Amino acid sequence: MSTARNGVVVGVDLGGTKIQSIAMKARERVGEARSLTPRTSSDDVVAAVVESIRSTGVPAAEIGAVGIGSPGEIDPRTGAVTQARNLAGFEGTVELAALVSKAFEGVKVRVDNDVRSALWGEYRLGAGRPYKNVLGVFVGTGVGGGLIVNGRLYEGRGAAGEIGHVVVKPGGRRCSCGRLGCLEAYAGRGQMELRARKLVKKGRKTVLFELMKKRRRDRVTSGVIAEALEMKDRLAEDLIKDAVAALGVGIASAQNLFDAEAVIIGGGLGDRLGAPFAERVKAAMMPHLFSAQNAPALLNTELGDLAGATGAALVAGA
Amino acid sequence: MSTARNGVVVGVDLGGTKIQSIAMKARERVGEARSLTPRTSSDDVVAAVVESIRSTGVPAAEIGAVGIGSPGEIDPRTGAVTQARNLAGFEGTVELAALVSKAFEGVKVRVDNDVRSALWGEYRLGAGRPYKNVLGVFVGTGVGGGLIVNGRLYEGRGAAGEIGHVVVKPGGRRCSCGRLGCLEAYAGRGQMELRARKLVKKGRKTVLFELMKKRRRDRVTSGVIAEALEMKDRLAEDLIKDAVAALGVGIASAQNLFDAEAVIIGGGLGDRLGAPFAERVKAAMMPHLFSAQNAPALLNTELGDLAGATGAALVAGA
Repeated sequence: MSTARNGVVVGVDLGGTKIQSIAMKARERVGEARSLTPRTSSDDVVAAVVESIRSTGVPAAEIGAVGIGSPGEIDPRTGAVTQARNLAGFEGTVELAALVSKAFEGVKVRVDNDVRSALWGEYRLGAGRPYKNVLGVFVGTGVGGGLIVNGRLYEGRGAAGEIGHVVVKPGGRRCSCGRLGCLEAYAGRGQMELRARKLVKKGRKTVLFELMKKRRRDRVTSGVIAEALEMKDRLAEDLIKDAVAALGVGIASAQNLFDAEAVIIGGGLGDRLGAPFAERVKAAMMPHLFSAQNAPALLNTELGDLAGATGAALVAGA
Repeated sequence: MSTARNGVVVGVDLGGTKIQSIAMKARERVGEARSLTPRTSSDDVVAAVVESIRSTGVPAAEIGAVGIGSPGEIDPRTGAVTQARNLAGFEGTVELAALVSKAFEGVKVRVDNDVRSALWGEYRLGAGRPYKNVLGVFVGTGVGGGLIVNGRLYEGRGAAGEIGHVVVKPGGRRCSCGRLGCLEAYAGRGQMELRARKLVKKGRKTVLFELMKKRRRDRVTSGVIAEALEMKDRLAEDLIKDAVAALGVGIASAQNLFDAEAVIIGGGLGDRLGAPFAERVKAAMMPHLFSAQNAPALLNTELGDLAGATGAALVAGA
């Protein structure tokens, strides 16, 4: 991809919790900004994206292009976003690219899937650099994924890489997608929280919800889970044990098909729990691996939560 | 791939049960031969391959190249075959390409994986023609698979496409690979036969083994299973029900990752049971499909058991 005309490209990672922007010039980071995602309306979310781009400190006239990684369904032609359930007011269609472009006097805005943006960032400038075929697994509120095939993002008909919905236990736990036994039903932070609430109702003890309140959060965040694990909270340990086992099965199934050189484990939970988590997932994967003598490298991200914004900038021409 | 120098290319599908050869000139079939695979020694197997090529009726001087689809591990450089457990005397390494080449005065011989050859044949000249991204699932003694990505065979590091070892039930039935709960443990003919023998020992009734003897076979072949199903044999029906459910889970998991336009179901059992089988597998896949509104086409093969020989010929330059 060529460098944008005016030199600076801003990449934006639009998440359900926060908005992360990075300004890049000739592959160097020249500015960044981070803010909380408004929970009010789509107008407020779009305004916050515009503000985040401004907050990178790059004068509007120097911005050559903007890339945005977004949840939901993306129309690649128009940059419209549909059914991004994590974002307030995005139940229908929001003309994200057009609205942001208007705020910057018609600058080119490219919107792409958030998970693919993050994988592309890690592939080009992070942990995936040495490889040709890579499987990305992003363990956050849900479990997203993506495939790099021969150095390019593989999109299938537009919906490839959904490792979160690989079946790890037919008839098992209910997933956020409504189906039973998907990987995400065990390893997604959202479904973990639901399960914790269910178990607490049944009388199990846990520090998870106290920690959540103490941190003034309304969700059991990755940070909350990490702190509970440090406190040896049994319920949190059980949740992670199930998540690791499910990731082992799901990644092994994917690897038996895909035979990647490397698997990158990212996302909020993956980044927070780091190398010990990736090692546990690798150990859980091994018994199900067909080419066990030729296991893929299991890597943490290098860019962490900047992967999405970095990838969005690269896709837009950085 | 260019047409071989002397015009005629012979493709050979070397299977555990039979050897199928096809002679092709400018993509037209100009001869074929079929024989049983010797169960004695690797020398006899190689001699039978040579004889099969001669039996296509093409004069040796007109053969420009030979392609062989073989089980086992293939050295792509030398065409040597290692650990093809279905073939007598192939436990170690057999210099298949060199030995066949010698019998035809140094003709170029290319050896490739049998499943990939069959998928390539179906992709180029069979059911896969209209598509770019295709998943092949070959249900025979085992369950083999392959991926076509953007019109090319995707090989990963050489071991891609092993859908038979996608996990469909963690901790489930023992697979021929030694692991638990692989798709092949439920849908491979070999494991079905083992399960039938186990259930008969426990007192279940079935016509499977009578039919096998009546047909003078030493294995429960696809034909035996098909006849038992026609007779409404309950045990055979149960085996197929389990196989269909497992294929539904395994193919859905693969599709959620790969988002193919089409899935081709072939192999001895897939070909024998035909369209009703493919329809049952599709129905079993649907509840696990993430993009259920955009399901892939589930197709039978068009070339049937000629897919392997056809693909081998194409790979060798037909």
